[in-house]
Order: sequence, then structure tokens, then C-alpha cells
Amino acid sequence: MYKNIKEILSLLQDRTINPEEAEKAILDFYSADLGYAHLDMNREERTGYPEVVFCAGKTVEQNIAIVQKLYEQKGHAFCTKVSYESAEKLLSIYPFAVYDVDAKTFSVGELFKACNRKGLVVIAAAGTSDLGAAKEALRTAEYFGSNVKLICDIGVAGIHRLFAQLDEIRKARVIVAAAGMEGALAGVIAGLVCVPVIALPTSVGYGAAFGGITALLGMLSSCAPGISVVNIDNGFGAGYQANLINRQHS
Amino acid sequence: MYKNIKEILSLLQDRTINPEEAEKAILDFYSADLGYAHLDMNREERTGYPEVVFCAGKTVEQNIAIVQKLYEQKGHAFCTKVSYESAEKLLSIYPFAVYDVDAKTFSVGELFKACNRKGLVVIAAAGTSDLGAAKEALRTAEYFGSNVKLICDIGVAGIHRLFAQLDEIRKARVIVAAAGMEGALAGVIAGLVCVPVIALPTSVGYGAAFGGITALLGMLSSCAPGISVVNIDNGFGAGYQANLINRQHS
Amino acid sequence: MYKNIKEILSLLQDRTINPEEAEKAILDFYSADLGYAHLDMNREERTGYPEVVFCAGKTVEQNIAIVQKLYEQKGHAFCTKVSYESAEKLLSIYPFAVYDVDAKTFSVGELFKACNRKGLVVIAAAGTSDLGAAKEALRTAEYFGSNVKLICDIGVAGIHRLFAQLDEIRKARVIVAAAGMEGALAGVIAGLVCVPVIALPTSVGYGAAFGGITALLGMLSSCAPGISVVNIDNGFGAGYQANLINRQHS
Amino acid sequence: MYKNIKEILSLLQDRTINPEEAEKAILDFYSADLGYAHLDMNREERTGYPEVVFCAGKTVEQNIAIVQKLYEQKGHAFCTKVSYESAEKLLSIYPFAVYDVDAKTFSVGELFKACNRKGLVVIAAAGTSDLGAAKEALRTAEYFGSNVKLICDIGVAGIHRLFAQLDEIRKARVIVAAAGMEGALAGVIAGLVCVPVIALPTSVGYGAAFGGITALLGMLSSCAPGISVVNIDNGFGAGYQANLINRQHS
Amino acid sequence: MYKNIKEILSLLQDRTINPEEAEKAILDFYSADLGYAHLDMNREERTGYPEVVFCAGKTVEQNIAIVQKLYEQKGHAFCTKVSYESAEKLLSIYPFAVYDVDAKTFSVGELFKACNRKGLVVIAAAGTSDLGAAKEALRTAEYFGSNVKLICDIGVAGIHRLFAQLDEIRKARVIVAAAGMEGALAGVIAGLVCVPVIALPTSVGYGAAFGGITALLGMLSSCAPGISVVNIDNGFGAGYQANLINRQHS
Amino acid sequence: MYKNIKEILSLLQDRTINPEEAEKAILDFYSADLGYAHLDMNREERTGYPEVVFCAGKTVEQNIAIVQKLYEQKGHAFCTKVSYESAEKLLSIYPFAVYDVDAKTFSVGELFKACNRKGLVVIAAAGTSDLGAAKEALRTAEYFGSNVKLICDIGVAGIHRLFAQLDEIRKARVIVAAAGMEGALAGVIAGLVCVPVIALPTSVGYGAAFGGITALLGMLSSCAPGISVVNIDNGFGAGYQANLINRQHS
Amino acid sequence: MYKNIKEILSLLQDRTINPEEAEKAILDFYSADLGYAHLDMNREERTGYPEVVFCAGKTVEQNIAIVQKLYEQKGHAFCTKVSYESAEKLLSIYPFAVYDVDAKTFSVGELFKACNRKGLVVIAAAGTSDLGAAKEALRTAEYFGSNVKLICDIGVAGIHRLFAQLDEIRKARVIVAAAGMEGALAGVIAGLVCVPVIALPTSVGYGAAFGGITALLGMLSSCAPGISVVNIDNGFGAGYQANLINRQHS
Amino acid sequence: MYKNIKEILSLLQDRTINPEEAEKAILDFYSADLGYAHLDMNREERTGYPEVVFCAGKTVEQNIAIVQKLYEQKGHAFCTKVSYESAEKLLSIYPFAVYDVDAKTFSVGELFKACNRKGLVVIAAAGTSDLGAAKEALRTAEYFGSNVKLICDIGVAGIHRLFAQLDEIRKARVIVAAAGMEGALAGVIAGLVCVPVIALPTSVGYGAAFGGITALLGMLSSCAPGISVVNIDNGFGAGYQANLINRQHS
Repeated sequence: MYKNIKEILSLLQDRTINPEEAEKAILDFYSADLGYAHLDMNREERTGYPEVVFCAGKTVEQNIAIVQKLYEQKGHAFCTKVSYESAEKLLSIYPFAVYDVDAKTFSVGELFKACNRKGLVVIAAAGTSDLGAAKEALRTAEYFGSNVKLICDIGVAGIHRLFAQLDEIRKARVIVAAAGMEGALAGVIAGLVCVPVIALPTSVGYGAAFGGITALLGMLSSCAPGISVVNIDNGFGAGYQANLINRQHS
Repeated sequence: MYKNIKEILSLLQDRTINPEEAEKAILDFYSADLGYAHLDMNREERTGYPEVVFCAGKTVEQNIAIVQKLYEQKGHAFCTKVSYESAEKLLSIYPFAVYDVDAKTFSVGELFKACNRKGLVVIAAAGTSDLGAAKEALRTAEYFGSNVKLICDIGVAGIHRLFAQLDEIRKARVIVAAAGMEGALAGVIAGLVCVPVIALPTSVGYGAAFGGITALLGMLSSCAPGISVVNIDNGFGAGYQANLINRQHS
Repeated sequence: MYKNIKEILSLLQDRTINPEEAEKAILDFYSADLGYAHLDMNREERTGYPEVVFCAGKTVEQNIAIVQKLYEQKGHAFCTKVSYESAEKLLSIYPFAVYDVDAKTFSVGELFKACNRKGLVVIAAAGTSDLGAAKEALRTAEYFGSNVKLICDIGVAGIHRLFAQLDEIRKARVIVAAAGMEGALAGVIAGLVCVPVIALPTSVGYGAAFGGITALLGMLSSCAPGISVVNIDNGFGAGYQANLINRQHS
Repeated sequence: MYKNIKEILSLLQDRTINPEEAEKAILDFYSADLGYAHLDMNREERTGYPEVVFCAGKTVEQNIAIVQKLYEQKGHAFCTKVSYESAEKLLSIYPFAVYDVDAKTFSVGELFKACNRKGLVVIAAAGTSDLGAAKEALRTAEYFGSNVKLICDIGVAGIHRLFAQLDEIRKARVIVAAAGMEGALAGVIAGLVCVPVIALPTSVGYGAAFGGITALLGMLSSCAPGISVVNIDNGFGAGYQANLINRQHS
Repeated sequence: MYKNIKEILSLLQDRTINPEEAEKAILDFYSADLGYAHLDMNREERTGYPEVVFCAGKTVEQNIAIVQKLYEQKGHAFCTKVSYESAEKLLSIYPFAVYDVDAKTFSVGELFKACNRKGLVVIAAAGTSDLGAAKEALRTAEYFGSNVKLICDIGVAGIHRLFAQLDEIRKARVIVAAAGMEGALAGVIAGLVCVPVIALPTSVGYGAAFGGITALLGMLSSCAPGISVVNIDNGFGAGYQANLINRQHS
Repeated sequence: MYKNIKEILSLLQDRTINPEEAEKAILDFYSADLGYAHLDMNREERTGYPEVVFCAGKTVEQNIAIVQKLYEQKGHAFCTKVSYESAEKLLSIYPFAVYDVDAKTFSVGELFKACNRKGLVVIAAAGTSDLGAAKEALRTAEYFGSNVKLICDIGVAGIHRLFAQLDEIRKARVIVAAAGMEGALAGVIAGLVCVPVIALPTSVGYGAAFGGITALLGMLSSCAPGISVVNIDNGFGAGYQANLINRQHS
Repeated sequence: MYKNIKEILSLLQDRTINPEEAEKAILDFYSADLGYAHLDMNREERTGYPEVVFCAGKTVEQNIAIVQKLYEQKGHAFCTKVSYESAEKLLSIYPFAVYDVDAKTFSVGELFKACNRKGLVVIAAAGTSDLGAAKEALRTAEYFGSNVKLICDIGVAGIHRLFAQLDEIRKARVIVAAAGMEGALAGVIAGLVCVPVIALPTSVGYGAAFGGITALLGMLSSCAPGISVVNIDNGFGAGYQANLINRQHS
Repeated sequence: MYKNIKEILSLLQDRTINPEEAEKAILDFYSADLGYAHLDMNREERTGYPEVVFCAGKTVEQNIAIVQKLYEQKGHAFCTKVSYESAEKLLSIYPFAVYDVDAKTFSVGELFKACNRKGLVVIAAAGTSDLGAAKEALRTAEYFGSNVKLICDIGVAGIHRLFAQLDEIRKARVIVAAAGMEGALAGVIAGLVCVPVIALPTSVGYGAAFGGITALLGMLSSCAPGISVVNIDNGFGAGYQANLINRQHS
């Protein structure tokens, strides 16, 4: 394998390889084929972080094979939306791995052994029912190297609970605000802090909550600036983006 | 005209009228026909309040004729969604009437000459752009006899503005909370007071605000109890319901 | 614990506490932490009523722990959307508690021992299938101290059934109108009475009823004034709001 | 032109025409080409009624040409959704024609000179703003030969107005119920009569009325049997269907 | 029980009863109470047909009790959306009753013993998967006294199949056209016949068929006149309306 | 059976048959009746390809009977959306048939024994979870005679994987692009090739992916020309259309 | 400018250029910058066809500048969604250009001077109001070199008009079916021919036609295979795809 | 005015003020009342940035008064969604101010006189029609102190244009990706960089683009991590969030 494209071009200039070989090498550089999946083995080089396995919609067998491939080559792997059934099989293979039953995340190995990232990611959850999405965000930001803190059940219907935690919240360099129903938490927090807020709508609620759509639309429509939004229940996306913003400090 | 159905039945029993006359009298009791409209002249007797004229979707001529009919018989009339064009013509007929250009309401004559209603209706508006709907609510509650107070631009993006007004808000016996965008104002207020909140979603906002739908859904989905919701921009409905609740004190 | 904020400020002025202590005391005043939940223990002081437990989306264990905490400190607790499985476990702990299988509500202890509230809340249900939501409203209003009466199966397709009950309905100080499908019941009732109507759309119906959306939209769009609306199947919200309005009489 | 397909096949059998001629004749039988339009000149033979011109989305010139073609061959023509601009030009050509400015219909010539149809079509309109759609239905049923009667402003918010007209309504053999907002009129009427109700949702209302969608969905979801529904503001479709049902009597 | 309102008024005039009794009698005339249901026992007198039991959303016990009540008093009963579980219990009580497993209808006793209705109702189904809704329509129209005929699998993707049945279809006095997916069958048929078409959208299809919404919207938007539409999968509504139209002939 | 319509007309001209017989023969030409289904036995003559059985929404018994009828007369049959349960029963009858568990397709017999079609259909799938729909497309195009190639897991989030396969993709005469979530694959490919792209949205994703609606809308809105779209998860439709386009080469 | 990437790599191997120059050259190969636009000058080399200018949402000045740039370098340009105002200015610069006022297309110069493409593209339009979209498709296919034929006003409400044109339609190698309202034309045609159908939904209709959404969904849900769909009113996309399919013959 | 709450509490402890004064001072601290607006004069102290004026939905007079108030006290003001009419009046008052007609932003005075922020914000716009939203983002980030660079017309339909700019894009510390139609730009960029991407959906497109909803949903559903999304056409929100993230570097 070549280290990067510049190396390929240099070898070409040195006539070590010919143009046809160079052309193929450039194309093949990143690809890695499992038949039903092309793993993005060089994603870490390109974007700074390795590929993460989204387990929903894949068979248990496919998920295990992908984890094995990643773990072999990288020494670590991180999976989201992992069913209990998949987790059991993965844990029988990797008994030292960690499965978070709330977050439905699975991680084996360590991505950043000694992480000295300075900034803190605060995950604020409006209610107890938002814990699943909130913890997926937490596990993700943690895996990618951020210091994290979860603050739970501070929804706006009893807004004094939020104010009681405001000092803690203000320690963050970036905040994930997870909420279902009307999703007002993100806007209220964004009006009180001077750091970016990643709004994470959850599918909590019923009737006119429409499985998270109302929270999503409310967060997008918030009159408070400093908010950007991820998909409904996409704790992974929120945690990833929060860590990406946080990394800029270190 | 008969006073009520009991009178008709008594006259029947007295054989002053026969069963056919009684049957017709019962049916005719409430109806009043303008060809294109059946005015509900006895609505005041039945529900405690006279009919209000919804001017949108009617011609200027129809609106004038309806107002004239009501004013003749009742000595007062109240109209909502009155276009500037209609208002000008109505004011030329009733120079002593009042047209509120923000609220788009028109009122001529007085419904309750000396109103001693004890409770206060507070109309809380999230932003300057919500004033139209908020003032329609205010004019309506006022016309039907409530003491009213408008508190403006206290949206949740700068929540200290709301807290600065909390003492005023807590004086209310019923609160109308008007907000567009994510509509979070209603839920935050309801968590801070012990009186009913009528949530009034407005069409303020753009994109994912969907002309008030997001505010409407957010208000319906709010996790704070003590909220009920009216149609988008339906200031009349909010003010009417607030007054109805308030009336119960007097 | 301090009684209220004024007490804290007085203690500060007396130099019993210092500004830092005062600041923290103000923030901590209302908060109570279970890890995954911050119970709103002072909600009763703030809004007049204690917190109610929304059980859907929480684990059985979480629900039991929350009920135990509330019951310990308050002597009573009220839960909604309680699954049969949760109810069985709760009843084994509190055999004297009451679980309403239609309403899916659970209550233990008494909120208002001797309630003399004067006004009556009438719960009108359009059809037999609307009973679940209607009874949730009934149980809620009852728990919070209202006199309640349920009138069932008086939908507008056989409107004489509604008229047959009109005298009963007119005894109410506030009416909850529960209906699915086209949800017309609320508008028809509101045109016949002089008290507020809380419209409660239910998910009854199929196809174009869209799980209660059609009823919800119809109730919001009703041409009859005096209606405000709660979320689909939100019997709790309707009963709570009805009781709040009714309380104003006592 | 051949009278019908049987005639063509007979001529073929008689060898008056050959199979190729017969094949083409069968295909050509109904077609009539204006370049941008194929007028359905034989629709009257096939379905009992001539083609009607839907003017929206066509240019004024196209509409005039189509009317002229129909009038030449048939001696009468009927148009819907006719703009004021188109109507003026058509009236300058056919000064004896009739343009109904509410219904936006234009008719020239008579379809049924001496119509003895026995049944009555009642058009019931919930409010004054529903008159446009209601009158389109009326003009259509009338043009196609039905006796018609319009009853206006009998919406369910003041349901006594409906009962006052019930005797008139019950004279109908088929009823068109036009309503916007929550569209409850159709269901209430259908529960009171023993003839088919054609529900005509109108775009009257705002906010959650969604331009007639709420009325449409409510009418489709009505729990009263005996209702079928046409498109929003489709007065033509309602009037046509009502006449079709009514015709079955004569 | 009084026969009708006129009788009550006559008795009042004769002083047999007093005004209070008369008032109550008028109100009570139609009501019949099962606690969770008010059966409309006089519906047959009012609208020409007895009440039909919609079983979905009611418990098995409620359905049985309602059927028993109706059967006792009327000698017949008809139910729709009957689950297999309910049907089994009902058949064990009424072994001579008929349950149609496709239509999910249950009927016991005969409504019209010797029905001489002249007109024919044709039920046209686009595909095999539309049979459930189509047969519900068929069973309903049949129960209420119409001659019926089912023509199946004549969808527009192979339009020759429709033409092959056109002679049969044209024998109808009213046609029910059941179709899912794009729902085009109703419009094509309506362009070929001179009788009313009741369009019955079904939930057949996937993806953009949106569980019948696409068929529903297509049928409402059809450019062919002579169509009116019922709710998705509402075979009962279609059959009832078709029979109502058909009855007018006899 | 007659060979075609011209033959019938010739026989008529020769007086071998009379006009009535000819008329019926023309109508009956294509129809074939199983009671609950009219098989389109002549579809192959009319459109070039035999009918395919859509198994969802039909009973196992109906599906088996239809396959048997087709196989008897044609010697081959192809089914889509075949449940595992149906497949097992079909395989017990036709042990030499092929069931693809990913694609959920079943085929028995060969449609084109020696297919020399020149062009290649490439099926490009964005992710592993899109394989089901992609393989349905592949099996369909293959059954109807195309050379096919599947390229998997080349979604735009790691766009180098797509470029690595571009040479392979460019060998196609027509491309099926299967993708869920934002569905961007179709637009990116269409901008890189000079052949038609059939976009196949899949239901992969959650939250704002709305079960494939977002992918569907994105593909329809793509700014790249050369794309047309089929229904969500409609691999059959995509493969059929791709083969139809490809056939034009042979 | 270099001819292609291979040339660049050869020059690199020959040391005519160095790796840095090669890298930049590869990146710069296709880009052409107008400040507010990067024209895709090599699109013709890459996809076989030049870039087309989508004029909606750009200023008149921007459109003129883009046309001038393209015309200078290529000798021809084609624009869609051209407003009358833009067209007038463009025609004053290029008096020999062609503006089609129905299609809103503008073309200057010739793309294919002597086009011998064998296949025919038939554009079938359901109604007169669909002409705009249909003619955009026609002008596009024509500009890119196809023989085209427009067949107009053959909607399914009078299906004999379609059959009368079937011989013409069957001459096509690919068909564009443009229809609004229920959009059934595409499915009916696809069931009658053996070539691909490109379905073009139009925004014709009102109410439940939802500006073309109903036609779009109906076309996507059609049970007839051989259909793929483009965006609402996207005549350009339909014509482009039809030509792409047609080109495969020549 | 007090500097902060701590000062108030200190003064209270010193008995300079009494508890009532302290309570009021705390509440009044942030509020500033214009009647129809409460300006958030201390927003800069609280969140790091001054309030920005959203001009849509306010009258010209209101906007001018708000700008004057802010400018007086702060020496600078920034407005978004400024109509041409408002801009003209504002420029006549502040001739040295800047109005960007594409971005519809107005700024007077300087927020950060000498800004040394290190990081670069890149605004990537998919097409020329996306310039309005993109420039609003640019003007906002610039006003709040970021270095900015706009890269235009690099949509995925000609993806080489994006690759040609990749080196420039990779210089950013945060990227705003503005796109309408299918909105794929954000996902493709996020897969190629290692910094946060703020996705800005625009209302560019027609039909199934649904005024930006499709782009919005696509961006939310993107399989590439590192994306968060703002409201449709909310260039201000995107620029604000990008600057907030960027600020963390300086």
C-alpha cells in the first residue's frame, strides 16, 4: 500500500511505476471490499476519525464481520444502534468490550489512549425518556476523546431545574441539548450561553409530537441563534459534531 | 316573537296556538335570514355572548349589511379580520366606532357598559411580530368585558425578559401566550403559574416554522400541563376563551 | 431548606448567610435529583398542584422509584399512561391504590381529602371507542379535586342523543369534549353552552382520520368560539386544564 | 360520421367498407381535434351528458375557441372556473349567455329545454363564505336538469339554524353539503336524513383549516354513513354527481 | 314510548301530558343507554336503515352486548371490521349467522326478507389485494337490500380486462370502484358509464402509495365527473352509499 | 382462440363469424379469469414481457395458484415481495426454482434461454442496508434477459469509493442507483456518466429519512439531468425499466 | 488546456511537468469560473451533452452572461424556465434564436446539425393545461437530437381518445406521459406498449391535486411496470431522459 | 444601572439597598422596553454577542427605531431579512452603513474593530441561486469577527468542480454548505474534511423540492457524520453558528 497520492505520483515520476499503474493506484487507494460493504479504512487519515458502524438494517453476521475487520486492522471499533441480540454475540467474542444498553452503543478497544482534550461537552436531556439519545451522544463524544458530562431531566416545564444547573452547563465548550415533545430546551439554553448548541430532537412524546418531528421543527425554528440541529434520535451525530467542535480547542 | 320555548309550549297548552304553529315557532325561534347569511340573533341568550362577525371571505358589502343588522337590533357589533378597505367604509358609516389596525378588529357600540369583572387577562406575546394576533386576543377579551394587559417581546431566547415580567403575569386569572417559530413561550409560562394558559400560535417565522404549524404542534406537545391551544393566528378564539374562563370569577 | 426566596434574601440582609450562599440557595431551591430524573418537589407550591408521573417511555423500575419518592414525601402520587405491567408491580407495593384499566391511570393516596369544589366538569365522549381518553380526563380532574360526570356515546351522527343530554351538559362549569374521526362534537357543544369547552381529539378512526390528526385539525378549525384544544389522546391535559378552570370558582 | 360501432361492423359485414376502414373508423369514432384539445363530442351519447369546459389553466383564447366549437355543434355549452376576464369576452360574443359571478360558471344555450325531473337537489352551505362552491354546485345541477334549492349559513356552531331548515332539507332526493373549516355539516345532516349526501369541502378558513384539507379529511372520516366526498371547492363535481343520482328518479 | 313528536304535541294539547313532560319526552324520544354506548334504536325510522356496529376499537364484550341488544329488539344486526376473535364468539352465540372472513363483516337475521330492488350495484376491484374492501362494500349493499355483483382484478395496467367486463359494468345503476396504488380505476370507469361511481380507495400498495392516501387523492382529483369518494378501506361507507342511491329506483 | 384482432375482423368479413361474435371476441381476447384474479396471459404479446406476480397482500394459496397457472401455460414465472413462508411452499412444489432471500424474489423456469443482450445493467447500492432493494432490481433485470452487475456500498459519505468503481459503472448502458437516507448517490452518478440513471429510493434510515420519502424527494429534485425515479423499495420497477431501456440495444 | 487526464499523466512521466503541476492540472481540468457560477464547459465530453441553463432563481443579467459565455465557446446554448422578460432581452441579442412561450425554453444555435437519430420520442399530454410541461419536454428532446411528436388531450376520463392515438403512440421508442390531477395516463399507456415510459407529473389541478403531488405519487405507485418518474413540471428532465434512452438506438 | 447581579447582592449585604430593591433590580437587570419590543441590551455580556435585528414581520418604522436604539447605545447594529424599502430609509439615516442586496443584510458601525481571529469560515454554495442564503451567512460570520471565503456553484451534479476547490475548502476551520434541491453538497463535503459542517438548506428548486424541505430532510438524513443543520434559508443562523465554532480557536 502507498502512503498517499503524492507518493504514487513521485513513484510515477521516478518511473518506478507506469501511468496505468499510477491511475489504478490512485483509484484503489481508499477502497476495501467485504462484498456487501466497502469499509472506509482510511477515513481516519482523511477526516481525522475512523469509520463507525451503524448496525440497524444490517444482519448480526454482517455487523460481526465488519467489527472484526476494523478491530483487526485498527485495534478498536465503535458501533451504534446495536440490538441486544447483536451485543450479546459481540460480547461473547470481545468480553472486554463495553455495551451501553441505554445508548445501544458498543465499543471495543480504545481510540485515544491518553486524551488530554481540554474542553467539556455537556449533554443536557430534557426528560428521563430522552436518556437513550442523550447517552448515545455521550458515548460517541467520549469515544472520540472529549470530556463529557450528562445533565438530565431539566426540561422547560419546570425551568428552575435548568437554572439550578446553569453553572455546570456554562462550563461546556459545546452543548448537546436533547429533547422530545416541543423541543424547547435547545432554544432556552442557547439564549443563556456563549458556546454552540447542538440540538438533538428525540422521538419522545405522542400525538402531535409526531415521533420527534415537532421537536425537530421547533429546534430548527428557534429564534435563539447559536443552534444547529441533527436528525431525530441521532445521538451519534450530535456527539460526533460536538466532539469535532470541541477538538478545535486542543 | 316569543320569549322562549316554554312560552310557546304554554301558549299551545292554552290552545292560543295549535300544534302546527307550535312546531313552526320552535323551529323558527332562533333563525334570522339575510339571504346569504342566517344571523344568530339569539346567540347572546343561548351562550351568554352575541355573535361576532368574521369578515375574511365575505364581500365588503356583505360585512356592512351584517354589521348594520346587528347594530340596529343590539346596539353594538364586533368584527374580526377586517381589511383596511372594509374598515374605511364601516368608519364612514359609524365615525364613532373603533378600528384597531394591528388587531384588524372593528367594534361599534358597547357590549358591557359598566364592567366590574374582577379577574385580569394577561396577553403575553413572544415577539414584536406576534403583536397582530396578540392584540386581536386583547381586543376580543376587552370587548366581552375582561380587564386586559398586554406584555410584549418576552420570548424564551432571552428568558430573563420573561422573568422580569413574571410578577405582572402572575396577577392574571388566565393567560394568553402568543408565539410563532418554536412556540415555547406557552410551555415555559405554564410551568411558572397556577392559572390556565391559552396558547395562541402565530404564523411568525419562515422555513421550518411552516406558517405557524411548528408553533401549533409544539404548544400541543408541551410537557407542561395547564395549556390548551387555539388555531394559528386565531387571536379572537384565544381572547374569547380567556374571557369565558375569566367570567367565571365575577 | 428555605421556605421561599424572600426568606433567603432576608437571611442574607441579616448576614446569617453570605452572598455566595444566597446565590446557591436561590438556584438550589427547587431541585431534587434521582440521577435520571429531577423531581419537581415544589411544583405544588409554585403552580398549586403536585407533579404527575408520565409513565410511557420510562422503565418499570424508574416509574416505581419515582412513585415511591413522591409518595414518601407527599403522601400521594398520580400516574398516567401506566401499562398493565407497571400497574401490577405498583399495586403489589400499594395494594390500596387505584388503577383504572380504561384510563390507564394509577393513583395512590389522596390529594384533596375534603374537596368542596362547587363547579362540575362534564366529560362528553362521542363514542364508545373514545372512552380511554375520556376516562383519563375524568380521573385527572377528579384527582385534582373537581366533581366530574361522564356522558358517553353522543356523537353528532345521531345528534338527538346529544340533545337528550343537553340539560346535564349545561350543568357543567367546564366541558371536556372527547372525539375522534371528524371531531365535530366539540364545535356542536360549544355552540350550545356558555362555558369553556376543552376539545380532546382521540386517535379513534382509520384511513383519513390519520390517528387523531383529522379530529385535532377539525377542533382547531371549528367556527364555534369557546373551544381550546389539547394533544391527541391527552386526556390528562384536558382533565388538568378543566380542573384549573373549575378551581377558579371555589 | 357513423352512428355507432355496430353500424360500422354491419357495413364491414356488407363489404361496404373493408377491415382497414373499419379499424380506423372504430378508433376515430369519438375523437375531435383542436390541436391543443381533443373535444369529447360524443360524451353525451356515452355518459348521458355533454362535456363541460374547465377554464382554469387554459388561455382565454383557448376557452373561447372550445366554447364556440361546442356551441356550433351542440347548441349549448357550460363552463366552470371562468375568470371575470374570460367571462367578459364570452359575453361579448354570446350576449344572451349567463355568467354567475359567485359560482364562476358560464352557460350558453339550454341543455334540457323542458325538464320534468321530479327529485329536488338541496345545496346546504355552512356559511356565507361557502357560497362560491355551493353556487357552482347549484348551477351545475340546474344546467343538467335538476330542480335545485340553496339553503345558506346553517353551520353547526349554531345548530338550531340547521334544525329550522330541516323540513326543507328533507324534501331533497340528494343533498350537497358545502362546508369549510371543520366541515361538520355533512356528518350532522347525514345523520338526520335518508338520502345520499354529497360532501363538498371548501377552502374557507385559515391556519389549521389548511385551505380545505381539514374539512375534506373530516368529511371522509365522518362516522355517519351515507356520505361521499368530492374535491375541495369542486362545486361542479358535487353538482354533477347530485344530478346523476337525482336523474335516476325521472 | 311515543310514536313520534306530533303525537307528543297532540297529547300536550289534549292536556294528557303537561309542558314539562312534553319537553322531556321530545328530548328522550330517541335515546337508549348501555352505559358505554347510546344505541340509536330509532335510526331506522329516521334515516330508513338501522344502526350498524363498527367493531374496531371496542372490546369483544362490548361488541357482543351491542349485537345482543340490537338482535333482541330488531331481529337482525350487521357488524363491520369484526376481528376473527370476535367473530368466533359471536358465531358460538348465533350459529346461524354469517361471517365473511375477507370482508370482516358479520350479519345475523335478515333486514329485508323479500327484497325486490330493481337496480344492480356493481363492485369493481382493481386487484386481488383490494378484495377485502370490495367485499365489505358488497356485503353492506347486499344486507341493505341491493342486488350486487363483484368484478375483480380489472386494474388499468391491463386495461383490456376492464373493457372485457364493460357490458357487465354498464348494467349497474351505481358502481363502487375499489382500488389502491394510484387508484385510477374510478376515473377510467366514470368516463365510460352514465351512472354514479363511488370511489373506494384501499390501503393496497407500498412506499409512495402511503397506505391508500395516494389512491384517495387521485380519486378526489380525477378529471372525470360523476365520482364521489369515501374513506380509505371504508367498504361499508361505499356499500351503504351505493345502496342509498340504488334504493331510489325501487 | 384467435391470434389477433385483425384475424377476427377478417373472419367477420368472410362471414365466418357474425358482428355479435366479433364484438365479443374482441373484448374477450385478452381476459383469463381465476375468480379473484384476471391473469394477463397475453401481456407478453402486448408489451414484450410476461406478467410478474406481486405477492404482498395476497394469501399464500392465491400466490401458489397464480404461479401454477402461469407455469403451466408459459413454462416460467417470476414473483416479487415473496415472504419466506410463501417461498417455502413454492419451493416444495418447484424444487428446481430459485428464491433469493435478500431480494425476496422467486423464479421458476427460464424466460430467455439464450440471451445475447449486449448492454450491461449496473446496480449501484449506496450501503449494505440497501442490498434488498438493489438485489430485487438485479434479479428482475436478469430474469428479463439483461447482463447485470452489482456494485455495493459506494455511498457519497466516502465518495472515493464511488470513484474507485467509476470505470466499472461507466461500462453500463443503464444504471440503477439504490440509496436511502438523503439519496444523493443517483445525482452524483448521473453527473459522471452519459447513460440513463434509474433512481431507486430505499426505506433505509430513520427520523427525517421518513422511510424513504427523503431519498425519493431528493432524487426527484436532483439538479443532475438523466435521472428518473421509481417508488420507494421498488427494486422490481427499477430493474424492469432498466431492462426495457437496455433491450433497445439488442 | 490539456485534452484529458491521461495526457497530463504522460506529460508528467515525460517530466515535461512536475507532480505539483500535474496535481493542479487534474483538479483544474473541468472548472470554469464566472464568479457567481462555475460553468461545466466539459460536460459535453463527460456526459455526451452540454450544460443547460436553468434560468429560474437567477437574475436576468446572470442568465444573459451565462448564455453569452456558452454561445461564444460552443456555438449554441439551451435555457429552460425562461421568463418572458429574460426572453425579450436574449432575443434582442440573438434575434435568430427561438423562444417557445408555452415551453418557456430558449435555444440559440444548433447542437446537432444533421441529426439522423432513428427512434421517435412521443410526448403524450393528458389535457390542454399540461401543454407547458409537455412542450418543455418536447423542446428538450428535440434540441438534443431526437425526432419528437406531441399528442395532446388524451386523458383517461375519455379513454377512447387515447385508443384513437394508440398506433401513433406505439411508433415511439420512448414515451413521455405528462399529466396532472390523478396522473393516471402514464400507467394506462405503460400497460399498452413495450417501450419505457417517462412519467411527467404536472401541477395542473386544484384542491387534493396539491400542485402536482397527487399526480407524482400516483405515477410512482402505478401498478404497471415500465414507468419511471421525474419531478413535477420538470419537462426538461423528462425530455432529457427520453432522449438519452432514445440515443441508445443510433 | 448595576454592573452585574453580584454587585446587587453585595449592595444588599451592605444594606445600601433593601431586599425589595434587590429583588426588583435582579429582575430589571436585563430588560429594556420600546413598547412593542424588549431589546436585549445585555445579550453581549451574556452570550458574547449583541442582539441582531430580524426585520421581516416588523414595520419599517419599528425596524428604524430599534436600529437607532441599538446604535445609540452600542455604536453598531446588524440587521437581517431587510427589505429594499427598509434599507433605503436606513441608508438615508446612516449613509456610511452597508446594505448587501443579495444577502439582504444591513450593518452600521463595527462590532470588532481589529479582529485577529485565526480560523477561516468557508461558505460553499451549490449553485448561483443559493447565493442569497450563502451571502447572509457570510455577512453574519464576517460581522461577528470571522475571516470568511465564499466558494460558489460547486454542486454535486458536476462534482469535479467541488474537487477543484477542495484545497481551498480544507483550509476552513468550519464550513457552511448551502444547497437547495436535494441538498447533497453538505454530505459530500463532510465526507472529505475533518472540521464541522453547518448545512444550510435553501428554498431553491421546485416541485418535489418543496421550498427547501427536501434539502433540509436530506441534510438531516445524511449518512456522513460531522453535519448539523439550520433552518431553510437561515443564512444568519448558519453564519452565527459557524462564527461561534470558529471563535473557539482565537
